[in-house]
Amino acid sequence: MTHSTSAPDAAWQDLTRRWQDLADLGDIGSLLGWDQSTYLPQAAAAGRARQQSLLSGLHHARATDPEYGKQLDAAGRRTDLSPEQARMVEVARKDFEKATRIPASFVTEFSRHAGESYSAWTQARPDADFARMVPYLEKTLDLSRQAAGYFPEFKDPLDYFIEESDEGMSAEQVGQVFSELREALVPLADAVIGAGAPRRDFLAGPYPRDLQLAFGERVIRDYGYDFTRGRQDLTHHPFMTRLGGADVRITTRVKEGDPSEALYSTLHEAGHALYEQGVAEAYLGTPLGGGVSAGVHESQSRLWENLVGRSRAFWAAYFGDWRDTFPAQLAGVSEEEMYRAVNAVSRSLIRTDSDELTYNLHVITRFELERQLLGGDLAVRDLNDAWHAAYEGNLGLRAPSDKDGALQDVHWYFGAIGGAFQGYTLGNVLSAQFFAAAREAHPNIEADIARKEFGNLHGWLRENVYAHGRRFTPNELIERATGRPLSVEPYLAYLRGKYGELAGL
Amino acid sequence: MTHSTSAPDAAWQDLTRRWQDLADLGDIGSLLGWDQSTYLPQAAAAGRARQQSLLSGLHHARATDPEYGKQLDAAGRRTDLSPEQARMVEVARKDFEKATRIPASFVTEFSRHAGESYSAWTQARPDADFARMVPYLEKTLDLSRQAAGYFPEFKDPLDYFIEESDEGMSAEQVGQVFSELREALVPLADAVIGAGAPRRDFLAGPYPRDLQLAFGERVIRDYGYDFTRGRQDLTHHPFMTRLGGADVRITTRVKEGDPSEALYSTLHEAGHALYEQGVAEAYLGTPLGGGVSAGVHESQSRLWENLVGRSRAFWAAYFGDWRDTFPAQLAGVSEEEMYRAVNAVSRSLIRTDSDELTYNLHVITRFELERQLLGGDLAVRDLNDAWHAAYEGNLGLRAPSDKDGALQDVHWYFGAIGGAFQGYTLGNVLSAQFFAAAREAHPNIEADIARKEFGNLHGWLRENVYAHGRRFTPNELIERATGRPLSVEPYLAYLRGKYGELAGL
Repeated sequence: MTHSTSAPDAAWQDLTRRWQDLADLGDIGSLLGWDQSTYLPQAAAAGRARQQSLLSGLHHARATDPEYGKQLDAAGRRTDLSPEQARMVEVARKDFEKATRIPASFVTEFSRHAGESYSAWTQARPDADFARMVPYLEKTLDLSRQAAGYFPEFKDPLDYFIEESDEGMSAEQVGQVFSELREALVPLADAVIGAGAPRRDFLAGPYPRDLQLAFGERVIRDYGYDFTRGRQDLTHHPFMTRLGGADVRITTRVKEGDPSEALYSTLHEAGHALYEQGVAEAYLGTPLGGGVSAGVHESQSRLWENLVGRSRAFWAAYFGDWRDTFPAQLAGVSEEEMYRAVNAVSRSLIRTDSDELTYNLHVITRFELERQLLGGDLAVRDLNDAWHAAYEGNLGLRAPSDKDGALQDVHWYFGAIGGAFQGYTLGNVLSAQFFAAAREAHPNIEADIARKEFGNLHGWLRENVYAHGRRFTPNELIERATGRPLSVEPYLAYLRGKYGELAGL
Repeated sequence: MTHSTSAPDAAWQDLTRRWQDLADLGDIGSLLGWDQSTYLPQAAAAGRARQQSLLSGLHHARATDPEYGKQLDAAGRRTDLSPEQARMVEVARKDFEKATRIPASFVTEFSRHAGESYSAWTQARPDADFARMVPYLEKTLDLSRQAAGYFPEFKDPLDYFIEESDEGMSAEQVGQVFSELREALVPLADAVIGAGAPRRDFLAGPYPRDLQLAFGERVIRDYGYDFTRGRQDLTHHPFMTRLGGADVRITTRVKEGDPSEALYSTLHEAGHALYEQGVAEAYLGTPLGGGVSAGVHESQSRLWENLVGRSRAFWAAYFGDWRDTFPAQLAGVSEEEMYRAVNAVSRSLIRTDSDELTYNLHVITRFELERQLLGGDLAVRDLNDAWHAAYEGNLGLRAPSDKDGALQDVHWYFGAIGGAFQGYTLGNVLSAQFFAAAREAHPNIEADIARKEFGNLHGWLRENVYAHGRRFTPNELIERATGRPLSVEPYLAYLRGKYGELAGL
């Protein structure tokens, strides 16, 4: 390094200090949120909300500091940065634009409306009264379009929302993937469901809570989840959260009458956590220090939950321990029956309760409705009818009440319309694409799993996905890791292979 | 309210907003600390320290904002404030002076020195090498005098340190109380120890951890600790912490081989928490929203731990449950034996392991040594000899190694010399003074305790102590609540009555 770079280096140091502070403030906010979901005393919720809002204000002030904007401008003009540094500046600039372009008054108006809409929804849903929500949803749609309008570089408002969570992807790319997927999934689900359901009676238990928790923790330790840099606690809704560079925690929930709930929640959140724990240390506290997109993140939770955790190899590895842990509950149950029980497919009205195969049909339905609403091809007043029609077409069933129709999901009633759902199914698609690429590099991965050996799989994912953080865009990362762009073939091959065999098709 | 006060009222609102923000930032810092002691993953300590330091910086910047100082000046000149409001301004001004008068460079120098001194102490103590610590302690003493020097209104540096934790009290007042106390305690301890030790063999257990925890939580629920505004978790060193207006948590530790450890830690910390939970809601988030001093705080932990929890009435109430919880461990043990076991008195070298009676002699010894050091009557190089001499005089025993002499306590090796100890014994003295006053108002308090009825005691303390927060100085509060200034008689009467009877004196 020559002495001529000493002034710019001081500027770079200043930027990295700002990034570290922004990361730390974000992580402190995550601790407030984690504590709220795990251990916060009941009466302390209002005070915690005030603390959160104080902290968000401090974060926002730093994230939108005009002086910071100038530093980013200056850094953007530098020609002496490494590609990594240049990407840090690029990502920071995107975050800065997000934080500064939407006026504070609009954010306030939107969140006031979201609060009112949510509150009305909690009343309208039990009454199955969609009509009452129409004016709220119309305003939500209007505000969603306005929000997108602050980013005129996106012609389709849905593109803006997709960019927010899945950088570089577009409504057209996602729509294309989803329609290929639907064409294949609808007949596949029909055939699998037609072939009959496996027995699941033995899952009723009861299964003692502590034994369930300990079992799940043994498995994720085998996966490679590092308990010196994380922990697991109980919450109502399981989640993964980063509270610091070396602090990535997960939560789960336990049902004594269904042990698959805790086990697969734990495996799912551990997948997210393996991603975050695997980000290169040099990126922590910089704009690159986290997972790159909703879709890639979900690919890792689904990979460890489904492609590993619901595989035959997994139950070959763990059924012995499982039966030793719950001998009375599993008396007379075979490994094959266990494997089939956790892979049962059925038609259901509720997305969050649905199985690996039909889950995507729920997501695709929501995505297409969002796209029509934002594009002006569907009026809010017709949404509920469109919902029922889409469910009949995609899932072959109709909700007996509007409660489980367009009133079902909280998403549209508590935030923008757009971008909330596609990441889930992009994640499923990508989980198989990454897994296939890992298996190409390590052909024995399935045999490894059957002997609780996850080092090759975890190592490949860490090297090709986790370590990079936000270094590349999702599309770049996918191409680099798998040698091809996002594509549905590996996922369809996986589903056809697995469920074709299970259903004897 | 006339319209002429509208401008001052806006100013008042601005002050209260600042106070709420300062309280919230402090509480968020407490959450970071609580999590660090309870659930933080092992590898996350360095990141947590950085988060803490960022947050302290944010707090410090607001606490020392010159604009805030001007607002306090203006508020201090107002003649239209209520006495409560005037006290808020007075307390805020004291806090502001504390935060602004000591230069940041001095704070940095002192904490760097404290770090070096602590690190040297961790080596010197196992080697029992006091001489090695002399230069560190000399510098600590020098820095301690410098710190006090920023507050020239205190002629005696020890007065400054006492004011920091026990506002309005002085070295002279505390010294007077302590010498009265020593004169009475030395012969009393001699006599009690001379009368022989009770059996304690049945405390060895083992006592299952979960049963111990559940038992302690039942007791403090009976005391009036509100679990909707708090919780208990496990830590290495038990503590109480406020994380919000409605969030006052405690921690405890459990030894399977001594159930008195967890029980009395829980009762002690619950005493602190009852105080904090009892502060008037209107004071929360203002300068008055917390306990008033170290001494008054400790009086509440000791009252609920000792005057209640180690009383005959307590064991009359709880021995049945206790024996039902641990029937095998307590086979053949009587209520009287249990009562005597938790009130055993013995000579010991270690303050933190000592009993209700001799504990004060440890504290008095430290206090007097601190006073001589700060006053220039004792040189650091002579401290260890002075320690041994004082222990022989006050406690009748001499440490076989300097390790348990002047090297024993971390306090002098990790911070200022001055003010660290007196609060513990002031608390013991005050616990009896408050208890006696409560019993004057409710003569049946002991009979109430024997039937697990704590409403009158808790109600009296809430009304006369807890609710006031920092509204009065400690001396004012004591006089208002008990009708007399701080005095040792109630405490000596309590100890003489209890231990005289136990030892058959």
